[in-house]
Amino acid sequence: MEWKRKDLLSLYDLTAEEIVFLLDTAEEFKKVSERKVKKVPALRGKTVVNFFVEPSTRTRVSFELAEQRLSADIVNMQAAVSSLRKGETLLDTVRNIEALQVDLVVMRHSAPGAQAFIAKHLSCGVVNAGDGAHSHPTQALLDIFTIREKKGCVKGLNVAIVGDILHSRVARSNIWGLLKLGANVTLAGPATLVPREFEEIGVRVCHNLREAIADADVVNLLRIQHERQAAGFFPSTGEYAKFFGINRETLKWMKPDALIMHPGPINRDVELTSEVADGPNSVILEQVTNGLAVRMAVLFLVAGCVKK
Amino acid sequence: MEWKRKDLLSLYDLTAEEIVFLLDTAEEFKKVSERKVKKVPALRGKTVVNFFVEPSTRTRVSFELAEQRLSADIVNMQAAVSSLRKGETLLDTVRNIEALQVDLVVMRHSAPGAQAFIAKHLSCGVVNAGDGAHSHPTQALLDIFTIREKKGCVKGLNVAIVGDILHSRVARSNIWGLLKLGANVTLAGPATLVPREFEEIGVRVCHNLREAIADADVVNLLRIQHERQAAGFFPSTGEYAKFFGINRETLKWMKPDALIMHPGPINRDVELTSEVADGPNSVILEQVTNGLAVRMAVLFLVAGCVKK
Amino acid sequence: MEWKRKDLLSLYDLTAEEIVFLLDTAEEFKKVSERKVKKVPALRGKTVVNFFVEPSTRTRVSFELAEQRLSADIVNMQAAVSSLRKGETLLDTVRNIEALQVDLVVMRHSAPGAQAFIAKHLSCGVVNAGDGAHSHPTQALLDIFTIREKKGCVKGLNVAIVGDILHSRVARSNIWGLLKLGANVTLAGPATLVPREFEEIGVRVCHNLREAIADADVVNLLRIQHERQAAGFFPSTGEYAKFFGINRETLKWMKPDALIMHPGPINRDVELTSEVADGPNSVILEQVTNGLAVRMAVLFLVAGCVKK
Repeated sequence: MEWKRKDLLSLYDLTAEEIVFLLDTAEEFKKVSERKVKKVPALRGKTVVNFFVEPSTRTRVSFELAEQRLSADIVNMQAAVSSLRKGETLLDTVRNIEALQVDLVVMRHSAPGAQAFIAKHLSCGVVNAGDGAHSHPTQALLDIFTIREKKGCVKGLNVAIVGDILHSRVARSNIWGLLKLGANVTLAGPATLVPREFEEIGVRVCHNLREAIADADVVNLLRIQHERQAAGFFPSTGEYAKFFGINRETLKWMKPDALIMHPGPINRDVELTSEVADGPNSVILEQVTNGLAVRMAVLFLVAGCVKK
Repeated sequence: MEWKRKDLLSLYDLTAEEIVFLLDTAEEFKKVSERKVKKVPALRGKTVVNFFVEPSTRTRVSFELAEQRLSADIVNMQAAVSSLRKGETLLDTVRNIEALQVDLVVMRHSAPGAQAFIAKHLSCGVVNAGDGAHSHPTQALLDIFTIREKKGCVKGLNVAIVGDILHSRVARSNIWGLLKLGANVTLAGPATLVPREFEEIGVRVCHNLREAIADADVVNLLRIQHERQAAGFFPSTGEYAKFFGINRETLKWMKPDALIMHPGPINRDVELTSEVADGPNSVILEQVTNGLAVRMAVLFLVAGCVKK
Repeated sequence: MEWKRKDLLSLYDLTAEEIVFLLDTAEEFKKVSERKVKKVPALRGKTVVNFFVEPSTRTRVSFELAEQRLSADIVNMQAAVSSLRKGETLLDTVRNIEALQVDLVVMRHSAPGAQAFIAKHLSCGVVNAGDGAHSHPTQALLDIFTIREKKGCVKGLNVAIVGDILHSRVARSNIWGLLKLGANVTLAGPATLVPREFEEIGVRVCHNLREAIADADVVNLLRIQHERQAAGFFPSTGEYAKFFGINRETLKWMKPDALIMHPGPINRDVELTSEVADGPNSVILEQVTNGLAVRMAVLFLVAGCVKK
């Protein structure tokens, strides 16, 4: 197939074929980072602006390295120092970026849909690096890439996603991508964070960990954010760990070859114990490695669809 | 002509011939950003330090992209993290930068004359990216470049600059550059912000918008900074907009082909309404595009005069 | 000899032969920054992460320029925006960095031994850019490089280090390096900041400036940090300057060709007066220049020992 999108906004928009094409392209790019000279000239003379209105280290660094390994020119803009503080509209800010003849804008924003809004108005490409609780497509792609790499396929697999589904863009993006590729998705967590309404999109909802992970091939543990606890969504991290944490004992409830995934940063002894995080089922650090390959693939493909 | 300055400090220092030479050079560099590979090796192996003691997004990003498209090595230093906080003198800080065998320092500073002071003591080149209310030469050059590009010439044109002239380095630099190239300059705004004393340097001062823009070929609207209002220079942004804002009605007072310019970031519904900002007279985003070309030209020319 | 370390953690670990090999390599790299094109492809396609958990301008900029002149790909991470704030362990943070197939991590951290701890767990190389009051090996190497360059050798020289020895990683690293190369080291300063215990490692301790510098070939003045005064280690910077500052008068106590060194940023009229800082004995700015060469050598050598 031929890639035809100048923007990557959400896995919800993509066909299964497009997702598979992205994963296949990422496989090729993964080899670049294994070489002695970790660099290809694919985006030489192209400019990428990393515009992070919401702070981020891990995603920003991963994108920045992906851009460097594609030989792009890179400019970083962060919220705290941007003109947004001076009352400029978001659209004016990005139109100014575009007027600098930039090819791609990688953007994180707290407002769901912010990237989709600007993509409509800009001729340069837009890559969504996370918009509120809505979507984080490159995270889901790296998760699915890792599953496919380890399990050989995605279709028919049972994937359990555990944690704060309600507020998680990682969960939403994973759900859309996994369902399109034919996986069976189970969501698990406290009822306050995993409402029954999710069943309407074709997933199983489960408030009991054992039940959720019993037949899982993959268990993806979401990060518990402490502000949720403050807001009364669950009583304490200790209680969360007791009912939904993966430890030596609860690990036995899973298939022996099930994968343990986590988007990071992990809270040791909350979502999972150190034995599990550093144990043989964990592919957490491989997710990070694959994230780079996936982002190289995304940047490369969308850049090819930007005019001029 | 041959360019002979290792520093660009102020348009006040330049001859008309030098300004024209800069504009002509920028015209050549403008083509680079229109190519598929937006990059030339002109400054390969040269080091540029962007030293912004006063924060900036738009100017800093524009310089950084200009440097990347010239293939320079770039280091960014910002006030908040610099040794200035530890009590080091400005001269010691920049001597330390110079000792790292840097070729160019692009500097923004709140003190008028800061760049001229350090340029005298350093053998590397110094480019003024704004010094207090004094001078912002690359902004004026990009304004004049845009005027020349759109109108074919500068000599004999009527240029109105509207807003807070008193505190504006953009206004001062424009005045010097425009007068040298033979334009007629009118300054307009509230009397508190546009004192009569400016008449002594050969411009017209006007406290009535209609009168100021009636015969203007170009209307350059300066950003209203809200701290001025707090300081009592004018009663409210609403009143400012009423007397000096450009909207559908006041636009009719101008020649139909007059250019609307603004250094950004714009305050929609203060200096101008959205109809005007996004309308056919506006060249605001083209100014941004031209800024990159002008900065490439400046960096290229001054780097050629730095010893070693 | 052949360099065999993937990490540079402390001069305490190195043999005299290794230190000399580093200095010789730095001599070669010093020539690169004197060229028109200040760049070699030695680290092309390698990735270096500058991870500064403690803020720094001068060391960070020096490392960043060294990396650029070696053609490395560079990512900067700073404490304020890192995942450490989200409760991630240091080891998890750097394991995540490593999973991005990074070759080298240059790290500053307030905890002594932080770099040694992570170096043990990572396959990528680790360069210590300062760990608490413990060690700052590249600073000591640039000091020793400057001494050797100016004096022709290090063995048998008398080196006085003046100031707050107790809290200084610069002092500790200098002491280890200088002793290994056969210099005689004298420490001088107020008794609260230069405890007698240092004598046990083979240096002279002295609470009288005149005595300390009378036979010195090199006088290295450490920066007085104002927080020490607040903590009661000495009464006032005025009193410090009176008893331990170098000025026109106290300069006469030294040999006429003694070198004045300082790691910067200097406090004029505290550790030394302007006459001394800018006078013929001062090699302070040459230290900065040499720092770049030393860091290029360190990065180049350790990168050669990183697997893959």
